Amino acid sequence: MIDLAAGMRIMRRVDELAVISADPERLTRTFLSPEHRRANDLVRSWMREAGMAVHIDAIGNVVGRYEGERPGLPALLLGSHLDTVRDAGRYDGMLGVVTAIECVAQLQRAQQRLGFAVEVIGFGDEEGVRFGATLLGSRAVAGTFDRGALAARDSDGIALADALRAFGLDPETLPAAARTPQELLAYVELHIEQGPVLERAGLGVGCVTSISGATRLAFELIGQAGHAGTVPMTARRDALAAAAEAILCVEQRCGAEAGLVGTVGRIEAKPGAVNVIPGYCRFTVDIRAPDDAQRTRAVAEVKGAIRGIGERRGVAVELTTLHENSAAPCAPWLMQQIDGAIEAQQLPALRLPSGAGHDAMAMAAIVDIGMIFVRCAGGISHHPDERISTPDAALGAATLAQFVRDFAPLRRARA
Amino acid sequence: MIDLAAGMRIMRRVDELAVISADPERLTRTFLSPEHRRANDLVRSWMREAGMAVHIDAIGNVVGRYEGERPGLPALLLGSHLDTVRDAGRYDGMLGVVTAIECVAQLQRAQQRLGFAVEVIGFGDEEGVRFGATLLGSRAVAGTFDRGALAARDSDGIALADALRAFGLDPETLPAAARTPQELLAYVELHIEQGPVLERAGLGVGCVTSISGATRLAFELIGQAGHAGTVPMTARRDALAAAAEAILCVEQRCGAEAGLVGTVGRIEAKPGAVNVIPGYCRFTVDIRAPDDAQRTRAVAEVKGAIRGIGERRGVAVELTTLHENSAAPCAPWLMQQIDGAIEAQQLPALRLPSGAGHDAMAMAAIVDIGMIFVRCAGGISHHPDERISTPDAALGAATLAQFVRDFAPLRRARA
Repeated sequence: MIDLAAGMRIMRRVDELAVISADPERLTRTFLSPEHRRANDLVRSWMREAGMAVHIDAIGNVVGRYEGERPGLPALLLGSHLDTVRDAGRYDGMLGVVTAIECVAQLQRAQQRLGFAVEVIGFGDEEGVRFGATLLGSRAVAGTFDRGALAARDSDGIALADALRAFGLDPETLPAAARTPQELLAYVELHIEQGPVLERAGLGVGCVTSISGATRLAFELIGQAGHAGTVPMTARRDALAAAAEAILCVEQRCGAEAGLVGTVGRIEAKPGAVNVIPGYCRFTVDIRAPDDAQRTRAVAEVKGAIRGIGERRGVAVELTTLHENSAAPCAPWLMQQIDGAIEAQQLPALRLPSGAGHDAMAMAAIVDIGMIFVRCAGGISHHPDERISTPDAALGAATLAQFVRDFAPLRRARA
Repeated sequence: MIDLAAGMRIMRRVDELAVISADPERLTRTFLSPEHRRANDLVRSWMREAGMAVHIDAIGNVVGRYEGERPGLPALLLGSHLDTVRDAGRYDGMLGVVTAIECVAQLQRAQQRLGFAVEVIGFGDEEGVRFGATLLGSRAVAGTFDRGALAARDSDGIALADALRAFGLDPETLPAAARTPQELLAYVELHIEQGPVLERAGLGVGCVTSISGATRLAFELIGQAGHAGTVPMTARRDALAAAAEAILCVEQRCGAEAGLVGTVGRIEAKPGAVNVIPGYCRFTVDIRAPDDAQRTRAVAEVKGAIRGIGERRGVAVELTTLHENSAAPCAPWLMQQIDGAIEAQQLPALRLPSGAGHDAMAMAAIVDIGMIFVRCAGGISHHPDERISTPDAALGAATLAQFVRDFAPLRRARA
């Protein structure tokens, strides 16, 4: 049942968090900053109000726990992150934390205890803005935190280890942030879609199938520079023309299968004069797919095609893999229950992949994951224009609350 | 008849000029510089040695005159320029001046006087490096010098007018550099090809048909930036993908007709992050053709095609014309006589357009023009690796000398 008042409460709280920013003009809240502490304090007060026991864990995540029918039961973990990119939107991350607290507050108002505990977590770092490495908060919880990251420095030269100390934490006790699989029944994250799929489908919420894996490549094409006037078209080895063919090849190959996306985001041609044929061109390729085999196949074909373009044009092709990330599929049993919660709102349950990374990706290392997406205006995210509607905030809360109330852990589902 | 010794003399003199440089490491000789004066002095001495009366004209060009059968006859004007780009090759310009002097020296040695005077000119500015405006020397001679250019300043803030004064010239008398059509029978320039056509054809010299006209355009494509992971391929308005299509369209259209060339030399995509779909792309297009109608047609078709690409992709197209230059066709009667001089060397007379600009372009305003190209190693020019062979230098000299000896002015050709 959609409760517009819940939507308004959520929007108000997201707005309250949005004023906690290092830059008053542009929402920017980084890991272990004074703004991180203020956001934790505010979230902690909301969690307490909703009847949760709250603590800050060893890496600075804020964690609230609402006990089940009896203390100490395994928990359904809800949440998302409280840090932002620079000049951010206000929903990315925060919406998931605030909505989860709203759901627990509803349980508390109804004096309802479930057959499991509900925990809500506000991760301190997902975006990785301050120290370069992403998902620090959820990796610590999943027990996959790389201690080498403690030496990473921010732009002021402050090491992560020192930033933790300044925040009142002890890098030595950091492993204590890790949870065990036994404590957790599932991790379910509600998040703004950051893309246009739900908007185009005319739906306020959707069920995520998988967080796409990603491959990032850098290509360097080496042809031959020459005079734009004197070298006939047939005698050219134009590196930019070869790159143009490569860009269209990425677009075409990745447009041929649903779920798959491919982007050339950076390009540079040298020498870069109006009247000189480019002898050198560098560009990046970012390919993502919800399914690893699908991505691997597309990447191999794109590489092969670009090598072929180079051979045909007499342009040498140098290739570097910048980054390779496996997909994190959502658990089918959780997708089924999320579908049920969406359908209970009298809506069709649209399933869609997430092309962006999320904390759920890290959490998948210790627990089954599920995600609910909320419609994003114009698909615009990581931008101050990031926006959702109040009815969609309410719909998201109603869906998550329904999911929580009806949640059947896998062991029970199997029984 | 090819005289290798002549080739060696030419190569030696080109080398002598090449050490007159503002930068001892990188050949750089700009208009009205101390190096310009030293080059003029050296060329003047060679001209005198070849029996010419020499003067420096009102804009600083060095001009030598070898009288015909009687003093005061109209002149066949030969020549090229003595200035260079920065870090230049040594043949671009200088080869034409030195070879023309060699031809006159041969006449003198044979004590031969022709039915016309022969003049050799070393233009002081063709490249436009110092004051931005190109062809200042030949424009002054053609009477098309724009007096507004006198106010142009070099990178040290020195105005062209003051540079002329410092060189011992008077900006007020600058119009005196202009020649009248009555004094001149033709302007014929020998020049390094700066492209690969003769090399590919296995020929040392060729006859230029036209100095290509050029159109330079800047395109701005405005699509929509977006997350490389979350926006499905079908929902994108990728400005760089649109540009890629445009680049291939330029290549394809300009590759479809001989003589026509099209180049995208500069490109910039924004925001320029690996994981963001480019919402903006700017690139330049340089289209040249020996025939203006051919170029105009190609430019119109490329513009139309790129607008069509934008419409199909939902990407706005903004277009600026940076520069538009008409072609300067060589005179058919001169091409015919140049062909004859080449064939006299037992070689087929290959005709080819010049995609690069030359002094002949400016001279076309007062007199019929012709050009002889000399083979360029690898088509490389405007670079210290610019190179010709000694036999080709000799062949160029033999061709130009033959042309001069056999030269039949148009009035006689018509008679």
